[in-house]
Amino acid sequence: MIDLYSFPSPNVRKIVIALEELGLAYRWVWTDIGAGDQFSDAFRAVNPNSKVPAIVDHDGPGGRPIALFESAAILLYLSEKAGGALLPTDPARRWDAMCWLAWQVANHGPMAGQAVHFLRYAPSQGVHDEYAQDRYGREIERLYAMLDERLADREYLVDEFSLADIACFPWVRLADGHGVDVSVHPHVAAWSARIAARPSARVRIPDPRKEDPTVSGWSAEQFATLFRSDAGKATR
Amino acid sequence: MIDLYSFPSPNVRKIVIALEELGLAYRWVWTDIGAGDQFSDAFRAVNPNSKVPAIVDHDGPGGRPIALFESAAILLYLSEKAGGALLPTDPARRWDAMCWLAWQVANHGPMAGQAVHFLRYAPSQGVHDEYAQDRYGREIERLYAMLDERLADREYLVDEFSLADIACFPWVRLADGHGVDVSVHPHVAAWSARIAARPSARVRIPDPRKEDPTVSGWSAEQFATLFRSDAGKATR
Repeated sequence: MIDLYSFPSPNVRKIVIALEELGLAYRWVWTDIGAGDQFSDAFRAVNPNSKVPAIVDHDGPGGRPIALFESAAILLYLSEKAGGALLPTDPARRWDAMCWLAWQVANHGPMAGQAVHFLRYAPSQGVHDEYAQDRYGREIERLYAMLDERLADREYLVDEFSLADIACFPWVRLADGHGVDVSVHPHVAAWSARIAARPSARVRIPDPRKEDPTVSGWSAEQFATLFRSDAGKATR
Repeated sequence: MIDLYSFPSPNVRKIVIALEELGLAYRWVWTDIGAGDQFSDAFRAVNPNSKVPAIVDHDGPGGRPIALFESAAILLYLSEKAGGALLPTDPARRWDAMCWLAWQVANHGPMAGQAVHFLRYAPSQGVHDEYAQDRYGREIERLYAMLDERLADREYLVDEFSLADIACFPWVRLADGHGVDVSVHPHVAAWSARIAARPSARVRIPDPRKEDPTVSGWSAEQFATLFRSDAGKATR
């Protein structure tokens, strides 16, 4: 059994898709990052970086539990656990998938994260930063143009469905939030629709807050917890 | 023989250290990212993301040439080529190294990159953005505190020297540039000194510009090439 520390986020969705595709048994561990759950000692024993996703596989190497953090490492671990599934068997193509997986976690993800911060979250707190909006807006457009070019003559990033697609899709699905109109990148749009049709991509990430009708958006306090690290400093 | 597309940068240095530690034959391919070399069709055939490092291994899988980009993917490729060197043989510890490697390329590297941009590069062009300086300054301090805590009772990130250390060291070496005083994090400082003493960490990355005494800092045009992606758009 695998514990998946989760919150509705694109990085968590990567792991959900992989777990579903691989048919591995898992259970949700709700981690309210707006309430600061990620700064608890218990959570930091699983992920010292205080972020979701993280997993504990109770049947890890040697039958012992193992904790993993960072979506790229978790995806590679799950693939290896399943005998190399979701990566091409051809070595050259497998390394191509590794490059695109690394590209997502080191470029597409972080830059989309900065773009959404300056386009949505910061303005919601009264911060309008045109220089940063322009900086990240340009970079994210460059990255989507690159993705579109790659997908112009391919069904998937390395021809067959792989961890590279699983890493990219959940962020592309939220492109609007980071200021990207996917219809401008038709090959990305078609690829995204292909993946969205897979049952693994349709699983709902549980969100207990949705049962509380008084919650909408981030409060100023939640914003501080998420983006200013005050809560993290307070617990260190 | 491995072609290493290089420019003096921490991400290139990761690859240099790995190549040197593994004793693999390589040659430098100078890539002037201030002059826009990374946007040429020839370079983009190696790395469609227009960044260094990138490599071509002329003796890749099946004896055929293979191109790789993204430092994490290149490091893992080189390790596998050398029979798994620079990663622990114990599976649990190996996955720990994978988590920290992924952490570096998805957190420490990108956030240090944003910090140095807003602390150094942007001000050098007259842009003083206090909100962004504060945002990235806090996040990078949080990441160094995490690193220091991890290294409090370890010689290396996963006890033995690994790809995780190789990924982190070249950025830590430049901590001053992204606004971090490493002496505040004594375990990081001691670890960094240990790695700096290795011959692999002392290799100088060739820089033909150094032979031109008229060059100092980035010109406005080079700044645009590097940070605004205009050159990239022009070639697309």
